[in-house]
Amino acid sequence: MREVFQTQLKEVQDRLVEIAGDATRIMEQASKAFVTSDVTLADQALASADAIQEKALSLDESVIKILARQSPVSRDLRILVSALRISASLERMGALAGHIAQIARFRYPGSAIPAALLPTFEEMGKLDIELGKKVVKLLQNTDVDLAKEIQAEDARVDELHRNVFDVVLGDDWKENAMFTVDVTLASRYHERFADHVVDISAKVSYLTTGAWNDAE
Amino acid sequence: MREVFQTQLKEVQDRLVEIAGDATRIMEQASKAFVTSDVTLADQALASADAIQEKALSLDESVIKILARQSPVSRDLRILVSALRISASLERMGALAGHIAQIARFRYPGSAIPAALLPTFEEMGKLDIELGKKVVKLLQNTDVDLAKEIQAEDARVDELHRNVFDVVLGDDWKENAMFTVDVTLASRYHERFADHVVDISAKVSYLTTGAWNDAE
Repeated sequence: MREVFQTQLKEVQDRLVEIAGDATRIMEQASKAFVTSDVTLADQALASADAIQEKALSLDESVIKILARQSPVSRDLRILVSALRISASLERMGALAGHIAQIARFRYPGSAIPAALLPTFEEMGKLDIELGKKVVKLLQNTDVDLAKEIQAEDARVDELHRNVFDVVLGDDWKENAMFTVDVTLASRYHERFADHVVDISAKVSYLTTGAWNDAE
Repeated sequence: MREVFQTQLKEVQDRLVEIAGDATRIMEQASKAFVTSDVTLADQALASADAIQEKALSLDESVIKILARQSPVSRDLRILVSALRISASLERMGALAGHIAQIARFRYPGSAIPAALLPTFEEMGKLDIELGKKVVKLLQNTDVDLAKEIQAEDARVDELHRNVFDVVLGDDWKENAMFTVDVTLASRYHERFADHVVDISAKVSYLTTGAWNDAE
């Protein structure tokens, strides 16, 4: 029974890793589509964002079945509850990347980003992709400690997010309202993507440090 | 044992109802603060948005303890897993309402809404508050069927959200970028608040219609 359970837990972990890889890939496509106005990539990102939702739903169903059949307690139970939350975050990350691709799609063949903000969005996209890759690593090997790096990168994304507002609200901003709307939302989506990575990292730390012991 | 479990389930339900009431109240304060530039109300909303996070966290811990001690299966298990998801949605609803209050706060003593969009945001706020009240009702009595009303109100919120973009991107829009940013984000927050209500309603329906039977 115990062995079956360990196999099931490993399968849950593998599927989380897979979905995290998907979310990262969608952000890669979306970010490139957004920065280079590539409509083919945008469409790929949108299709994958739909698929990730199905995968997360199916994973959640498997977790509920394991909960019902194995009635796990303490750490095993917490791993499964965390898996449900992590899958929800990964699904949102895919959706947020999809929203970025959607903006690129709407504005095609034009660009959604004025030149003044191109470097900012390039960096934001790069950071989000790195954060996605760190989630994959964390889920593959929950013993690694990437929390500090993740926090630092998230802080930089927040800084870039504020920077977008500084530019948009500055005296030099002469772009029309469409650009203002697009960059406001795109910046928000990048920032939320990073937030979810921080949430996942906190959940993984909580499992590995055993901070949950007090609560039982 | 069964009786203890029923008492515990009832307590989970009561706490969800309480948090849903909080989220609705925060939206009431935030929406009024946003529409009337009332900084006192905005501060109240922000304080309550912090408190809701604590309440949701503490509820989640209780749910995990019940899962560990009672090892529920089938419908009971699904109720508890749904409770975790509903609490996550309610927490986000509180946070989103808090973001709306934050915008009102930043712009005080000025208004964040140009006259042309005031009726739109008044209606959006009213709909979000109504949706919040429907969630309270749904959680109090999971037998009531509010799904259709909730879908209709959410569709109207989406319509108003698109309307905000139509106004902002229209030829008559002469407001500065700050107004454009504020209304773009505020509209998005209102729309996401309604989305979470739809998600919660779907989860409650799923429990009451027994659509989950197939999955077990």
